Amino acid sequence: MQINDPSVVTEIEAALARYEKALVDRDVETLGDCFWNDPRVVRFGTHENLYGHAEIQAFRQSVKPGGHAKQSVLRTVITTFGKDFACVSIAFAARRGGTGRQQQSWARMPEGWKVVAAHVSYMPEAPASS
Amino acid sequence: MQINDPSVVTEIEAALARYEKALVDRDVETLGDCFWNDPRVVRFGTHENLYGHAEIQAFRQSVKPGGHAKQSVLRTVITTFGKDFACVSIAFAARRGGTGRQQQSWARMPEGWKVVAAHVSYMPEAPASS
Repeated sequence: MQINDPSVVTEIEAALARYEKALVDRDVETLGDCFWNDPRVVRFGTHENLYGHAEIQAFRQSVKPGGHAKQSVLRTVITTFGKDFACVSIAFAARRGGTGRQQQSWARMPEGWKVVAAHVSYMPEAPASS
Repeated sequence: MQINDPSVVTEIEAALARYEKALVDRDVETLGDCFWNDPRVVRFGTHENLYGHAEIQAFRQSVKPGGHAKQSVLRTVITTFGKDFACVSIAFAARRGGTGRQQQSWARMPEGWKVVAAHVSYMPEAPASS
């Protein structure tokens, strides 16, 4: 299994750029197209656990304008595994303050690269006691 | 790409059970063996962003006893993609209260199934204003 085949990395960079632009543009249709259209896709969001493409799209529709989470990107790690799988981990300075984290797994489906699992969260600024 | 090939799902169930047991046992060596031993592995934890196996293991060593996060598992979704990749998404009731989320991507490496990216977070109980 080749790690970080340059041609695969380039494909993921393009898919990720399309997704991030759709986030900024609040382009719900494109966001939906970036995710696997399947009941088995999972998105853990900052305040919601969503199972299946329909739940994810219903959530996208409900998000109020102006809520874009990222102030600036702190660090992006793209790692590809073979020809058909990739993980993307982004740490970002959040508009609401503190650090956010966005992690996605992408798979090459017959219809193109799709996010098959995603998890977004904010990191508390101070450690908890546990 | 076959989704949820039963033999692959069975392998991931076993790998996940080994990881979860190591969490409960605070078996740092086994936890380390479950993760990809590579600088490119990423673990976003509840209060830390860790890059590379060395940072993850240093964190494991620093965790105080008694800190096991899960009170009970609410929902586990395992989805496998072809023969060599899988995503695991676990929602759990947290001992500290509220809901935790643990998401992992596993890849079949020459040395066996390894977590190549992970993200753990607690979901705030009430939605934020943003």
